[in-house]
Amino acid sequence: MEINGVEIEDTFAEAFGIQVSRILVTAATKKLAKIAATEATGYGTSVIGCPAEAGIDCYVPPEETPDGRPGYIIMICNMSKKKLDHELLERVGMCVLTAATTAAFDALDDAEEKLKIGFKLKFFGDGFEKELNIDGRTVYSIPIMSGDFLVEGELGIKSGVAGGNFLVMSESQSSALIAAEAAIDAIKSVPNVITPFPGGVVASGSKVGSNKYKFLGASTNEKMCVTLKDVVEDSEIPADVNGVYEIVIDGATEEAVKEAMKIGIEAATKVPGVLKIRAVNFGGNLGAYKINLQDLF
Amino acid sequence: MEINGVEIEDTFAEAFGIQVSRILVTAATKKLAKIAATEATGYGTSVIGCPAEAGIDCYVPPEETPDGRPGYIIMICNMSKKKLDHELLERVGMCVLTAATTAAFDALDDAEEKLKIGFKLKFFGDGFEKELNIDGRTVYSIPIMSGDFLVEGELGIKSGVAGGNFLVMSESQSSALIAAEAAIDAIKSVPNVITPFPGGVVASGSKVGSNKYKFLGASTNEKMCVTLKDVVEDSEIPADVNGVYEIVIDGATEEAVKEAMKIGIEAATKVPGVLKIRAVNFGGNLGAYKINLQDLF
Amino acid sequence: MEINGVEIEDTFAEAFGIQVSRILVTAATKKLAKIAATEATGYGTSVIGCPAEAGIDCYVPPEETPDGRPGYIIMICNMSKKKLDHELLERVGMCVLTAATTAAFDALDDAEEKLKIGFKLKFFGDGFEKELNIDGRTVYSIPIMSGDFLVEGELGIKSGVAGGNFLVMSESQSSALIAAEAAIDAIKSVPNVITPFPGGVVASGSKVGSNKYKFLGASTNEKMCVTLKDVVEDSEIPADVNGVYEIVIDGATEEAVKEAMKIGIEAATKVPGVLKIRAVNFGGNLGAYKINLQDLF
Amino acid sequence: MEINGVEIEDTFAEAFGIQVSRILVTAATKKLAKIAATEATGYGTSVIGCPAEAGIDCYVPPEETPDGRPGYIIMICNMSKKKLDHELLERVGMCVLTAATTAAFDALDDAEEKLKIGFKLKFFGDGFEKELNIDGRTVYSIPIMSGDFLVEGELGIKSGVAGGNFLVMSESQSSALIAAEAAIDAIKSVPNVITPFPGGVVASGSKVGSNKYKFLGASTNEKMCVTLKDVVEDSEIPADVNGVYEIVIDGATEEAVKEAMKIGIEAATKVPGVLKIRAVNFGGNLGAYKINLQDLF
Repeated sequence: MEINGVEIEDTFAEAFGIQVSRILVTAATKKLAKIAATEATGYGTSVIGCPAEAGIDCYVPPEETPDGRPGYIIMICNMSKKKLDHELLERVGMCVLTAATTAAFDALDDAEEKLKIGFKLKFFGDGFEKELNIDGRTVYSIPIMSGDFLVEGELGIKSGVAGGNFLVMSESQSSALIAAEAAIDAIKSVPNVITPFPGGVVASGSKVGSNKYKFLGASTNEKMCVTLKDVVEDSEIPADVNGVYEIVIDGATEEAVKEAMKIGIEAATKVPGVLKIRAVNFGGNLGAYKINLQDLF
Repeated sequence: MEINGVEIEDTFAEAFGIQVSRILVTAATKKLAKIAATEATGYGTSVIGCPAEAGIDCYVPPEETPDGRPGYIIMICNMSKKKLDHELLERVGMCVLTAATTAAFDALDDAEEKLKIGFKLKFFGDGFEKELNIDGRTVYSIPIMSGDFLVEGELGIKSGVAGGNFLVMSESQSSALIAAEAAIDAIKSVPNVITPFPGGVVASGSKVGSNKYKFLGASTNEKMCVTLKDVVEDSEIPADVNGVYEIVIDGATEEAVKEAMKIGIEAATKVPGVLKIRAVNFGGNLGAYKINLQDLF
Repeated sequence: MEINGVEIEDTFAEAFGIQVSRILVTAATKKLAKIAATEATGYGTSVIGCPAEAGIDCYVPPEETPDGRPGYIIMICNMSKKKLDHELLERVGMCVLTAATTAAFDALDDAEEKLKIGFKLKFFGDGFEKELNIDGRTVYSIPIMSGDFLVEGELGIKSGVAGGNFLVMSESQSSALIAAEAAIDAIKSVPNVITPFPGGVVASGSKVGSNKYKFLGASTNEKMCVTLKDVVEDSEIPADVNGVYEIVIDGATEEAVKEAMKIGIEAATKVPGVLKIRAVNFGGNLGAYKINLQDLF
Repeated sequence: MEINGVEIEDTFAEAFGIQVSRILVTAATKKLAKIAATEATGYGTSVIGCPAEAGIDCYVPPEETPDGRPGYIIMICNMSKKKLDHELLERVGMCVLTAATTAAFDALDDAEEKLKIGFKLKFFGDGFEKELNIDGRTVYSIPIMSGDFLVEGELGIKSGVAGGNFLVMSESQSSALIAAEAAIDAIKSVPNVITPFPGGVVASGSKVGSNKYKFLGASTNEKMCVTLKDVVEDSEIPADVNGVYEIVIDGATEEAVKEAMKIGIEAATKVPGVLKIRAVNFGGNLGAYKINLQDLF
């Protein structure tokens, strides 16, 4: 199958279950909301080494937010509910509450459970906090130095999907990189997903375990390294490919992840020099979701 | 004392010892370096709740970096050397190595100790890694999907200073906010410091413990909350003050923190509506450093 | 009338007829499209002294553009069709054609006339240009150094509205400024309008002619200057107002301008310290449009 | 000659004399200064079709500006002193004076002449303007709606150099583009120069006149178009080159232009896929300056 003249390999992305939260961070201006959303979602590329997978989902204009101010929806995810509870408490408490003019509201549809994040944060008010009702939501107003911080009492979580992905394989590193950027630009218009790696793009791929260092749980996937294509015998890098980047997508639903993969692939294949799209899987036994690339179209 | 017509209170900022690292993250373009630097320093406002205090120190043009590419120097800090070692490994490994076209080099002067971060990360190469010498530095080249990631074998750490600070008190919240932004703009030209809070600005202040909730280690400092100035009896907010923001500075040296405080205060006092500059301390018994505001000038 | 507790004065904005164009600028990435759109719309605040009134209307994701790439819609306006024709030719030819990876398409609904901009630009191809049909549009492909530049043969123009406006009056300059920024953030979600001044905000207001210098066509409106409120006898600045900024809106239709004014005012009145919203008019005899503020709600 | 393994062709860039101005635009924050500087320098790629060549030179931190606020230095250039005078009056008057919280100061060393820009703009104050002395400069304070606008009475101009340039030739369009971006990033650290095209990069090259359309003064340089390399007989695009972008530099001095070319070439040649650096000239008879590429190193 070809999209925009680029081969879509007949393979599947293997994705995993994860607990997902989705929080609207508003502020006096779009820029101030972005600052808080960025701080709260940093150090959140993969739970392999980061305390959460986190990113900015989308911008919400002021006329569509509960407090009439501009905001960004962020998603924070972890396999463990307990760890997600901790991350929400600290990322909202340390990175949103401390940021200028912000407020935080639940933005998850179809929550399966609610975590009492705002309820717990309100104690910071030391008795001066107040309970408000805004748009049918229970919200706490906590006096802080610069004014009052509003935070919804409960933030929803649900079972979502982590690790939706595709690979952009290109004749040059630069072409793969611009194609990855184009894919991320396109995915930004799909709600309910994040691309948690830096700038949405993954420069490295790993395999389970290591051939040489037995103490390692994961190591570079040498068969997919462009600079090793003439070094390792069973390299999977075609002769004409010199650039590979991966897009990894976490989503609140499998449908959202699929839509993001579709739209991302369409955008990437528009960039000159892109030769092939494939996906990362581990044989199909590790993850709960198998998303066939060709079924997306 | 007055600076630009604004009263500088006769008080001191109380600061603490912290272990500091300073790493140069380079990439093919300035934008790509910024993306990696931002991801690696997120979720890093205060060790009270974040796993590190982290931020971007300064930009370094390509002609001044070891690999001739544009870069940003980041600082990552923790009270504990062991935790800092963990944070460096994960923040560099998960947020810089995974980012497009990046490399990471030590950028700390007068290191007291070296942590073997690059040395440990190199095992990810599963035997395909190489040791290089660049500008007299031992650097490892690790093959990853999109190319080779370069990382210096050892990253220096030293005893630095956390929690240098000053408060901007203004007739309106907006004026305090713009003054805080102006202060941050000015502090960006001082090397060896970061302002780890979101956008460099702190919207909340806390006191040790809580009057009402005995299980809390810290709670809002009600005496410094503008919306409680007519509610609490012993409010320290003057009648004409309606906006307060704090700037918190971590630095590799006390001198750098002082320089940042001086330059930041000068910039903040240029903004119309600023009435007073003061600082946060805890009586002087908790922190190792007392920085008198008036001695800065 | 009050909105969010802020007085909306019973007055009207006086607006003028103008010829409007609306062009979609696409590129390989969102960032590259933004660069071209910004260059093409600079030096375009007011036709009083600039060769056009110009700005960025909105972002269009790749799945909604004719060439499947991300783009920004820009608007370029002038009272004179002849001058608008010149501006389109030069701004597209010098600032979009010369920019990396761009293309330009007509994006105006209900055009009253078509200007042959792409048709004229195609001669730059010196015989190597080609005529294409994309989505039913006649588009020229012009070979340039880095590839082929696509431009639609004809760009539509229509009679639109210039100078829709409102004034934010605040207790401090900083509050008025943040409120103006919040208004601009909100207006960005209204299609078919631009706010042509720097960052969307106007810091100066003028009156027709001059009392002191007879050779001047326009001079500062001293009655509306906050620093002259205690100097001129008939100042219109209330005693408690210390900050005033104006938002000026150009639109393809009167309805779009009204919607932008409404949404902008709602956002501005959310910012603490805003005391009053009014509008600029010249008695009602100069402009073709009178937009009553209170009728917006 | 090779730099970083990339061939530097033995050729020269042909550059022209131009009248140059250099103005410092300050504001309350770095962001506000950037907004004004960007608006004032838009629609300024080349005097072939734009009313000026204009761009941002560099950022100046608050402790180094006359008013202690952050600022950007912009350069505005034209072959004709009379046209430059007009452009300065309108670009400062319509795009800086109208922007929030700004001021404008002369920033040109070794001026050969002074234009009375601030002196003329002051009449907008309608008698309420004041003459101040700041740091030995004659500055006018003009009351505008939001406060007072400060502008230096005279702005210096001098004979500078336009059209310093080099071409990045790469195996792919994407590689040439990233190399051009890296070059621009590097050039940003050289004072006294601008790169006036969108994002600093030129996507199109032209020849004098046209072979097919006799009414044209300039048309595409078909010998340098990558998509015509197999179409035109005497193409100058090597078989392995598929991407070409040009960097054009205007400077206050020939030395500054040379330094920018050198630093830009060094940065561009660091990007994988770059094959060759050459320069644009017209045989050497049109321009006053011939800058040999190989002499730069």
